[in-house]
Formats: sequence, C-alpha cells, structure tokens
Amino acid sequence: MPGSTYGKLFTFTTWGESHGKALGVVVDGCPAGLPLCEEDVQAFLDRRKPGQSRYATKRAEDDAVEILSGVFDGFTTGTPISMVVFNKDQRSRDYSEIASCYRPGHADYGFDVKYGFRDYRGGGRSSGRETIGRVAAGAVAMKILAALGIEVHAYAEEIGGIRCETVDLSLCGENPFYMPDPAAAERVREAAEKRMAEQDSMGGIIACQVKNMPAGIGEPVFEKLDANLSRALFSIGAVKGVEIGDGFAAARSSGGRNNDPFLPPDREGGPLKKASNHAGGILGGLSDGSDILIRAAVKPTPSIAKEQKTVTREGRPITISIKGRHDPMIVPRAVVVVEAMTAVTLVDMLFVGMTARMESVCRFFGRDRAVPGRAEESGKP
Amino acid sequence: MPGSTYGKLFTFTTWGESHGKALGVVVDGCPAGLPLCEEDVQAFLDRRKPGQSRYATKRAEDDAVEILSGVFDGFTTGTPISMVVFNKDQRSRDYSEIASCYRPGHADYGFDVKYGFRDYRGGGRSSGRETIGRVAAGAVAMKILAALGIEVHAYAEEIGGIRCETVDLSLCGENPFYMPDPAAAERVREAAEKRMAEQDSMGGIIACQVKNMPAGIGEPVFEKLDANLSRALFSIGAVKGVEIGDGFAAARSSGGRNNDPFLPPDREGGPLKKASNHAGGILGGLSDGSDILIRAAVKPTPSIAKEQKTVTREGRPITISIKGRHDPMIVPRAVVVVEAMTAVTLVDMLFVGMTARMESVCRFFGRDRAVPGRAEESGKP
Amino acid sequence: MPGSTYGKLFTFTTWGESHGKALGVVVDGCPAGLPLCEEDVQAFLDRRKPGQSRYATKRAEDDAVEILSGVFDGFTTGTPISMVVFNKDQRSRDYSEIASCYRPGHADYGFDVKYGFRDYRGGGRSSGRETIGRVAAGAVAMKILAALGIEVHAYAEEIGGIRCETVDLSLCGENPFYMPDPAAAERVREAAEKRMAEQDSMGGIIACQVKNMPAGIGEPVFEKLDANLSRALFSIGAVKGVEIGDGFAAARSSGGRNNDPFLPPDREGGPLKKASNHAGGILGGLSDGSDILIRAAVKPTPSIAKEQKTVTREGRPITISIKGRHDPMIVPRAVVVVEAMTAVTLVDMLFVGMTARMESVCRFFGRDRAVPGRAEESGKP
Amino acid sequence: MPGSTYGKLFTFTTWGESHGKALGVVVDGCPAGLPLCEEDVQAFLDRRKPGQSRYATKRAEDDAVEILSGVFDGFTTGTPISMVVFNKDQRSRDYSEIASCYRPGHADYGFDVKYGFRDYRGGGRSSGRETIGRVAAGAVAMKILAALGIEVHAYAEEIGGIRCETVDLSLCGENPFYMPDPAAAERVREAAEKRMAEQDSMGGIIACQVKNMPAGIGEPVFEKLDANLSRALFSIGAVKGVEIGDGFAAARSSGGRNNDPFLPPDREGGPLKKASNHAGGILGGLSDGSDILIRAAVKPTPSIAKEQKTVTREGRPITISIKGRHDPMIVPRAVVVVEAMTAVTLVDMLFVGMTARMESVCRFFGRDRAVPGRAEESGKP
Repeated sequence: MPGSTYGKLFTFTTWGESHGKALGVVVDGCPAGLPLCEEDVQAFLDRRKPGQSRYATKRAEDDAVEILSGVFDGFTTGTPISMVVFNKDQRSRDYSEIASCYRPGHADYGFDVKYGFRDYRGGGRSSGRETIGRVAAGAVAMKILAALGIEVHAYAEEIGGIRCETVDLSLCGENPFYMPDPAAAERVREAAEKRMAEQDSMGGIIACQVKNMPAGIGEPVFEKLDANLSRALFSIGAVKGVEIGDGFAAARSSGGRNNDPFLPPDREGGPLKKASNHAGGILGGLSDGSDILIRAAVKPTPSIAKEQKTVTREGRPITISIKGRHDPMIVPRAVVVVEAMTAVTLVDMLFVGMTARMESVCRFFGRDRAVPGRAEESGKP
Repeated sequence: MPGSTYGKLFTFTTWGESHGKALGVVVDGCPAGLPLCEEDVQAFLDRRKPGQSRYATKRAEDDAVEILSGVFDGFTTGTPISMVVFNKDQRSRDYSEIASCYRPGHADYGFDVKYGFRDYRGGGRSSGRETIGRVAAGAVAMKILAALGIEVHAYAEEIGGIRCETVDLSLCGENPFYMPDPAAAERVREAAEKRMAEQDSMGGIIACQVKNMPAGIGEPVFEKLDANLSRALFSIGAVKGVEIGDGFAAARSSGGRNNDPFLPPDREGGPLKKASNHAGGILGGLSDGSDILIRAAVKPTPSIAKEQKTVTREGRPITISIKGRHDPMIVPRAVVVVEAMTAVTLVDMLFVGMTARMESVCRFFGRDRAVPGRAEESGKP
Repeated sequence: MPGSTYGKLFTFTTWGESHGKALGVVVDGCPAGLPLCEEDVQAFLDRRKPGQSRYATKRAEDDAVEILSGVFDGFTTGTPISMVVFNKDQRSRDYSEIASCYRPGHADYGFDVKYGFRDYRGGGRSSGRETIGRVAAGAVAMKILAALGIEVHAYAEEIGGIRCETVDLSLCGENPFYMPDPAAAERVREAAEKRMAEQDSMGGIIACQVKNMPAGIGEPVFEKLDANLSRALFSIGAVKGVEIGDGFAAARSSGGRNNDPFLPPDREGGPLKKASNHAGGILGGLSDGSDILIRAAVKPTPSIAKEQKTVTREGRPITISIKGRHDPMIVPRAVVVVEAMTAVTLVDMLFVGMTARMESVCRFFGRDRAVPGRAEESGKP
Repeated sequence: MPGSTYGKLFTFTTWGESHGKALGVVVDGCPAGLPLCEEDVQAFLDRRKPGQSRYATKRAEDDAVEILSGVFDGFTTGTPISMVVFNKDQRSRDYSEIASCYRPGHADYGFDVKYGFRDYRGGGRSSGRETIGRVAAGAVAMKILAALGIEVHAYAEEIGGIRCETVDLSLCGENPFYMPDPAAAERVREAAEKRMAEQDSMGGIIACQVKNMPAGIGEPVFEKLDANLSRALFSIGAVKGVEIGDGFAAARSSGGRNNDPFLPPDREGGPLKKASNHAGGILGGLSDGSDILIRAAVKPTPSIAKEQKTVTREGRPITISIKGRHDPMIVPRAVVVVEAMTAVTLVDMLFVGMTARMESVCRFFGRDRAVPGRAEESGKP
C-alpha cells in the first residue's frame, strides 16, 4: 500500500533505507517560481545530521543533498523536485543478531509478520534516516510559508522529565538539545550523562509554534487542521502522544475557564484577537488566527546497550544488548522533523483551502464581478 | 475542499447540518455479503442519541436511521450504502444572537473567515450532530471487525478530573457517563450537579481498547496505524489530545522501562506475546499483536449558560450567555463516536494491508505455487 | 473499493440502485456563496428523465430532486450538498429470468463473479439511473463554470451511423435525439422506427464542446486534462471510445498537417489563437485556449427484445428476449450525462490548477510583493 | 498539483526533465517478496531506448537503470522502489529559438501560461523521456502480472494509415516498427522514407491485448476498468483517442450484432466464454473474462524540420523549422509505454478489487467460517 506519499496538493514521497544506496524524496505540487537551491535544503538537513554532539549517534554522514529535477535557473518549475542523499557510512558489521531476533520497542516483529521478512540492516525503512526525505520536503514548505509570512518554530520543551521554564527561541541552537531554556538544557546534560552511564535512554516532548497563521485554514470535518497536524506528528517514529493548546489539561478544565474570549480587532475589519489561547490556535478544526501550539511526546530511544529480554524469530527466549551507534535520546534531532511535518501540513492545508469561497475563485480567474456577493443578493447578514 | 470523506478503501462521506432537513452518510467500499439491517445501525445511533439523561442535551430526536441503498435481501451488495436520519426537533427559536456574534470555544469565527458566512442554526456543520454519519458508518465497520474476531470498546476513563480506578466494561451501560467504574461514576454525578449549578461544563478522557488485533497492520511511514487513529480521533470536535499506550508518560520513562519485552508464543508458530504493553499495541506504526490502547482528551462543552465576553461579527465587545439545550459534558455521548472512528480506521487499514505480501496476493488469486516463497529462492533466513 | 466518488477538490459520491428506495449524490468541495436551488438542478435532471419520447424508456419517473444539506438562504455554504431523488415507479414485476441468467452486453456476469451475487432488479447499480447523481453534480459544476464564463455544450453528433452535417446548438432541443441538425434528426427518426420494429437498438456518438476555456488548465503528466476527460466519459456505461479533436483521424495525418499554427493575440498580452484546432483545444495535457472538442462512442442499448443466446447462472445455454421498458438508443438521454461529466472534470481541474504559480498563491493570500517575480530575480526572459 | 503520481494501491511517481541531471520513478505499494533486479527493468527500458533504428531519435543514451531502494537480497521488501536513470547525452546546443517561441503541436504555450516560464531544454517535463519512469514501473507491474498468469502485449497496429492484416506477436521484434505483420512493416518502411524526405512525420495506432484476465475486475461506477485504462493511455503524450473492443465501430452497430453471447464454461463452475468479443473484454466497467483489447491513436510527431508558422512568446508571427534529433514517428517507441501503463493499471485494479467480497476478506484473515455464506443465510439463490 502506498503509505510513503504525504499530502493532497503539496505532496511528497519518501524512499530509502538506512543502509541502502541512498535515501530521497520527490516533492510534487510545489508552485513554479519559488527560488530554490541545494543550500536552502542543506541548512535543514544539517539540523538532523548525526554526529553533532555526544548526545547523538556517531554515524559519520554528510547527508549532502542533490536536487535532480524540478528546478531551472534557480527557480522551481512546478514539476516534481527530486532530492537525493547518498548513504556513505554503511559500516560493514555483523547484523546476525538483529536479523535473528526481535528488538523490544522496535517494529521488527511487525515487519516480519507483515512482509514475511525485512531489511534488518540498521532498521531498514523504519530507521530514523527515513526522515531525511521529510526534512528536505519541509525545507521547501518552509520557503513557501516564509513567502506567505508564516513562521514555524519547533523546540525541545522537555527531556527526561526536565521541562523548560522559559522560552527564548534564539537560544535553541546554543545547546545540543535544542532547548530554548539554557538552565533546563544544563540539567538535561547532567541527567543525560547519568542515563548514558546506565546504558539507557531518555524521552521528551517537542513543542511547535506557528506564528502569523491566517484564520479559517483547515476543513470542518475529517480534514481538520489539528487532525492533520496530529497525524503528521504521529507519523514520526517514536511519537506516542500529541496535544493542541492545553491538550490533556483541557480535559480537566471547565468551559468557563477553557473558552478563550474573543477581543476586538486592532483595526476595523482586521483579524480578531483572543484574550487567551487555551485552544492552541485551532477551533473546530479551523485556525482561529492565534498562534498554533502543538506538542508531541517522544518515547525514549528503544535501542539501548543495557541487557533486555526478548525472543528470536523462532520464538525462543534470549537476552540481547543492542550494540551500535544509537542516539541516547531522539528528541534533539527530531525537532527539525516536527518542524518539517508541521510545515508541509500547513502548506497543504493552505492550498486545499483556496477554493472555499466562490468569490475568491472568481477573483482568481479574473472574474471579479461575475458572481454577486452573497450578502448583496440575499439581502441577509 | 472535499474534507467530508474518510478512508482509502473502506470510505464514508458524511453530510448534513444540525438544523437542516436531514443528516446522513454514504459508506463506499463495504464488501458484499455482510448481513446488515437498520437495527444493526440503530443500536449504535441510540448510544449517541440526545435526551437520555439529565447530563445530555434535551433535544428530542429519535435519530431513526433509514438505509436507502447498498443492501439487498439483507446483505450488503458491495455498492454504496446510503443512510439517512431526518431531523425532527428543529425547534424554531431566535438565532439572532448566535448569528451576530462569535461564541468563545466555537468555530464560528473560523467559518465566517473561511466561507464568508455560515449556517448559524445550532452550529451548522460543526454541530455534534454531524457525528451521526460517523456512528452509522462505524456500525458497519464494527460488523466487519466482528466477522474478523476483532473487538473495539471505548469508555469514559475520566470526567472532570475524576478517573476510573477499575475497568469493568460490562458496567459502562449502567451509568449515564459510560464509565466502567461505578464508584467513579457516582463521584462524577456529584461533580456534574455542582458544575451544572454553576452553569458551567466539564471535559474528560475517553479510552478505547482493541482486542484480538492481528500483528503487522498499519503502514511503516505516513500511514502508520497510530497516525491514522490519531487523526481519526482528532477529527472529532472537542478532542484536544491523543495518546497511544503510555503516551505522554512514555516521554518521562527510560528505554529500559518503556520497551516491552517479547515473550515466546503459546504454540509453535503462534503470535508472540509481550511482557508489558507500554507501547499500546503499536510499534513503528504497525500493530504488534497486543491490545491497542488509545486515549482522547475531550475539552469541556464550550456552550455554557454562564456569562462570557466576546465580540460581535463587527468586532464590538459584548457579553453573552448561551441558551439552548446543550450537553453539560461531551464525553458520554462521544464514547460511541470514538469507537466508531476507531473501527472505521481499523477496517480501512486491514484492507489496505492485504497487498503487503506477494505470496498472499498470489494465493488470493488462486496461484498458490506461482511465486516461489522468498526463503526458498534466496536460500536466506 | 470506493469507486463511487469522483474528483479531487470538487468531488461527488453517487449512490443508489435502479429499483432501490432512492438514488442520490453528495457533492463535496463546492465553494461557499454559489446561488443554488432545486430548480437549478431539476432543469438538468429533466433532460435525462425517462418517458419524454417514444425513443426513450416508458418508465414513469418525475425524478424530482430534493436538496437535503449544504445550502442556506439560497447559497451554498461550502459544506456537502446532499441531493436525493426517490424512486417512484418500481413496478412490481417478475425478475426471475434476469436473476437466473446473464444478459449479453450487460455486467451481470462480472457482478456475480466479483460480489458473489447482485441486485438484479433493473440492473441494480449498473443501471443508467445511477447517472442521476452525476447529472445533479454536473448541474452544480455548470453553475460554477458559468460564473467563470465557461460554457459546455454536448449533443448527439451521430446516431445509427447517421451524422450531423451542420451544428446549430440551438436546435438540439427541438428533436427527441438532441441533434443539432434537423435533417439528420429526421433521418434518425426513420432509421429508429425501422430498428425498433426489428426489436433491435442503435448506438451513436456524442460530441461535447467547451467554449471560453482558459489556457494552461490540466497537469502535465498523469492528470492531463484530456486523460481525465477521457476517464470521465468512459465511466459512463456504454461508452466504448473517446477522442479529442481529430482523434483517430490524427493517427492518419502528418505532423505538417496535424500541427495547429499559433496566431498572434487580438490584443497585446491577450491569449493566443490557433489557425486550426486539430488538437481539440488540448496540447500536452494542458488546455491551449481554443475550444475543447471531445467525442464519446456509445454502443447500442444491450437490452433488446430480439431473441439472444446466453447461459444461465449455472452455465446452461438458453435463449432470452429481454422484456421491459428499455431505451431503443442510449445517446439522447446520455447527452446531458456527457455534459455533466465534462463539467465536473473541468471544475476539478480548474481548482487543482490554482496552486501552479507561487506568484498567484502569494497574491491569493494577500502577499503581492513577498516573492520577487521570477523574471526580475533571474534576469532571464 | 501532484499530477505525477499514478495509482491507488500500486502507485508510482515519476520525476525528471529531458535535459536535467536524471529521470526516475518511485514505485510504492509493490508487495514484498517479488524477485526483482535491474536486468528485469532494463529489458523494458531497452525497448524504448533512443537510437535503435533510423526511425527513432539519434540521441545517444544508454538509459541504464539503477535501483536505489526497496529491494533486499533480490526481493522487493514492500517499501518504495526508487529507480533512476542519469541523463548522459545532454548535448550543449542553442535553445534560444525554442525558448523564444511556441512550437505548434507542443505544450510550450500551455506551460508558459500555467507556470509563468518553462524548462525549454528538449521539452522539459513534457518530453517523451518522462516515460522512462513509467516503463520502469511497468516492468515491476509486469512481473506481478506474470506471477498471476496474466499477459500484456502491445504492438503497432497501424502506422501512417497502413494497418496490420495479420497479428503474430512473435514477429514484433523483427522490424523497427514493432508491428506483428512483416508485410505491413515493409510498407511502413517505404512510407516512412518518403515522409522523412518531406521533413514530415507519421502517426499511428497502438493496440494492446491482455490475456488470462480474470472476470470481475474493475469497479462499477467511476473506477471502471476501461475508464482507468483509457486515462492511463491518454496520459501518454500524443495519444488523441482510445477505444475498447469495437470502439467507435460499436456506435454504428446494433444491439443484436454488438452483444456478445455467453457460452457455457469448459468445465462445471469454470469461467464463462463468449461467442464473440465486440466488448473487448470489459462490460459495465468489469472484466468479463475474455481477452481485453484496447487501442490508442497516436498523433504524428509534432517536431518536424519542415517550415511551420507560429508566434514568439511576445506574440509576433514567425516561421520556424525544428532542428534536433526527433523521432519521425512516435508509435514504435510508445508501444512499450502503452504496455507499461496497461500493466500498472491492471495491477492497481486487481489490488483494489480484493475487498469486494466479505467471504474472501474473512478467508484472507484466516476466518473461513466466521461469516455465513450469503446463500445459506438468506435462503435465496
């Protein structure tokens, strides 16, 4: 089943395995005329590159992207943008253990049941390296959003139970955890050293803010903006929970406290404001003009050196210790993936919403006065 | 944009507004030969019917379903199943206040920005009555799942911050909150009386268990089983968070504690078991053969009689008190909707997974020996 | 499999069987603010209504349409438009023959193999009555096209081998065959009487012109405008061939004769003209600004009273004579169906093409100057 | 808009331009366990390779395919298969003429209107080289069909008005036109020499037979098998008409002659035969078990050296003569493309049809007796 394509109008298809020849993505539906070059994409890929700190896998990959199609004279042409990253460090090692048993916390067993066998080298298709394609597509989406004045910022809100108390987005790049609170980052560093010494791993929470989002984006029923964002984040391996705005805390609030009062616009006819934002910028599946706030819970890295009980492919109990170059925590490198998946979803929903009003459709096709404004014709409010 | 259709192979399209002539659904992709009658569907609709307790809206609706197509001689024919519920109690009332201002916690403002105007009667398309179509489709999906031996059970796990401490699913129907713990239900009753006296409302958490789920269902990348379940639940109005298994708690665990050890099968070649189920039955987007456990956070009903500040369509501040027949809590009536959305998603994912293996495809088309088993040909494990 | 939904952004789902309770359609993705009432739709349905001449089935149906949702105060709201036609003349008759054997030229055998059984009453889902939903959806699409200044006109170009020699669209309604050439219509009348006396049936060709089509609509690869129009027409029962422009005759031409020379525009910056239109208004899958001309070959009605050899469900040879109220020719009543399927396809393709240029997307979202025009930035033509 | 992806369950996405770095395809939804190697794919690509006769472009390309993902140990893994062909002969030449004017018979003008500019080198995305990706995907589909016992054979039925009078598929490879009738091929050779001397080009008709097709494949309404095949063929550049079985000739027949009588099966319970096959193996959108016969009309190559009138991008009239390495006829190299598009469509429709019967679904999931056979329960035939 074609589960490797994402999106309706702005789509992308990722392909590639952890230890195959290459990984890549085909972005289809990017409008023509967007300035785009490999550096634009590389900047995003560098944020998820391995080997950047002692809290990430040591695998040595440049992850240098090459654009093979869809760009001409520095601009997108409206045709598919094919981007590829060749795998370099496919270290030759012994996969017999991982091939012959089911690692706890991994999809090995599911793959074997589903497909009859699996590419067991480094996790194959369910490797975190699959996100290379997502991030490359996200880089394109971020350029489109930038042209529309919309910003997306993800960051590590919590790691190993240690939460940020302040949020200064400009500080994220200054610590290896992508946390906007240096004090929290320092505490995470200490906790991480301890956890790594125990040959164990940590989880955490990634938050993502969207600024300058226009109101009315999203579709009222199944294609709610939050429903699609949730699916986008849950499609990232290791995500076990998603919430919008107050999320689970809203379930314990009351209507009187949880409802956000609307405020008059700054200028006549301008967008409304809200006195609070418990809703996280989305009401009834449509953006309400406030900042969107979404959060993903990321489980601890399942690959740990600590001994674990499991069974072989034949069902015999064994004890394993997972060797190799694994991240002691997934969160820092997944921040840019959350940003990418949020960006591609927003672009897609902005595009699919363009036909919501007959009036705008007529104007788009140069028929400004062809359809009488609804109000005029009906004489109703 | 066509946001009213759900699913890939087992699909359904809902239509209708709160105060229009009727609401309904067209289920397309139901296999032929499934026994189906109106009573099958009615049983599910009755669980979301208004007016069943003092903790639900008093709107008087039978919500009697009529099947207009797709069933012949008591069996589905493989063609679209059109089901309709005519609205009866479209009480003539004054909608001028709701038409002229934006209710906090509702999508009114988003609708106006998006479409230029809205059907303001009772929430129009964003009314909870839209879920009639979902529940009817869910009833069909539940029959398919039953034929495959799969069970889906949703229940209220928490209301107004009061959690169930025991789970006896057989007791859900004995209290108006659909809680599996009578003691918790009793405490919710007291809390609800108090909240209603304050003209305010309550939120809660709905849990859903899936039993006898085969392993290997779901697709590895964007169509992960949990990603699609999450989108399914987030598409229900008022849901603000979703988690699978330990969810947000997993983010605070360690790999060593959060990983579920696999256990040998009961019989040779049988499905594996797990020693724990922190994963909630899904790993890497594929079912792992354990029970699926998913949870949705539901916000408090936004329509409250208590006075609230907001603005008019022209942006002028006003104070409103929402009259009408509103549920003081959404959770009890949403339980069957969560069950329905889970069921339709499972059926769709089961169907799309049928082409995962060449061997099964060949067997399906009666070519048992046409393709050599992979193992034999390659001589590899 | 969900084969009853058509379209990507402007979609519709048809449902219903020939002798079920009702037939209908759900149109999803119609922009808000389009004036729409039942009369708009009825006018189109009346063109395919049975019983209008002695060259059409005598089944007595009003085919009165009811709009159940999606319209408020006379305007579409942007939410699904559910339209229904209740079957009235479900004459109680004996279906034992048709139930027990396979009619030549019909899908009976395919249905039985596919689904295990079939609703044999009047053809069930493969009845021409299924097109009621298409025509209702087409009526909505025609209103959208009209607002954009685009016209669609289908007509009978040939029946029983007799071709129109002149095309005056205003004359189509004056003969029961929907032919734009009265002389040809007269000859068809004579031929039809003869064929009916032989208890046999006639086929023909339906042509469809699209006027004022903007250039650049369609997508270059799989979603070519002609590819989608072709699928639209082939999805109408009884269509066995489709051609665009010169079609099969182009295969016998040469490049020098078949290429249409471009001509200068009427005014500077205006759309180009072509000196001829062998291409039928579509080049490389994109509209070229000339009128679109498409043609569908319709087979003779397979239900004939004449004796035919076939087999029973058990495979025993028999001779049958199909009784009942069958059209001696399908073409006249299918003209409006061709028009409808063309219209819905055009609307969908117009909508999906709205994101082709970054410049237009930015302008749509009010960011006129955010993205530098491609030409300026690159300094290239 | 994402028009570069084809299919629902067996999907593929093509990318690349005539003179870009590379062209390729991502096949998603191929079942796991299919033996696949580069040679399998190369054999098909070689059939469309340029430079194989004096009746094809002289461009020197190996078109050597590389598989970058989705295959492990010689078998498909169920994950996306990425295949790439690097462009070698991107001869540096002067594109100023083609960049500055609109070639008759080409999509240049449509591209400019749609996207604001175009990659004018060798036709960019609308080049015939785009079909490399289709043929590679088709090679995979052909292997799946072979495993199911289904054969697809396309051939040139007519070129320049010269038709084959005999069809011996084994002879197609022996002439440069891929014609199954050597005498016709010889006449085409003479006609081609003459046409080339005139600096002009030829069109023709490609036929495609499908043998051993099971009955009941296709969906009754919009996803009719013939509708999807038609779209598949019309999506190939230069196709201007498609017909199934007797096609346009059926429009001139009568029901009595055009209906194919069913014949008893060879063995009890075996598939039915038909006494004739005017229908081309498809009735009501479902395969009827006879051979499928489909035909595509291909226009003459629009790029000709002969002088033609057209206009510049600014709308000024000019005369052009198209230089370069163009095929004097498209048909021979398009034969394998027709075969590929037919194959991918058949695989997709076979897959989507797998959920048609509850009974088969239950059996697939190992629940043979869970659902009572329809007949037993209802007591009806």
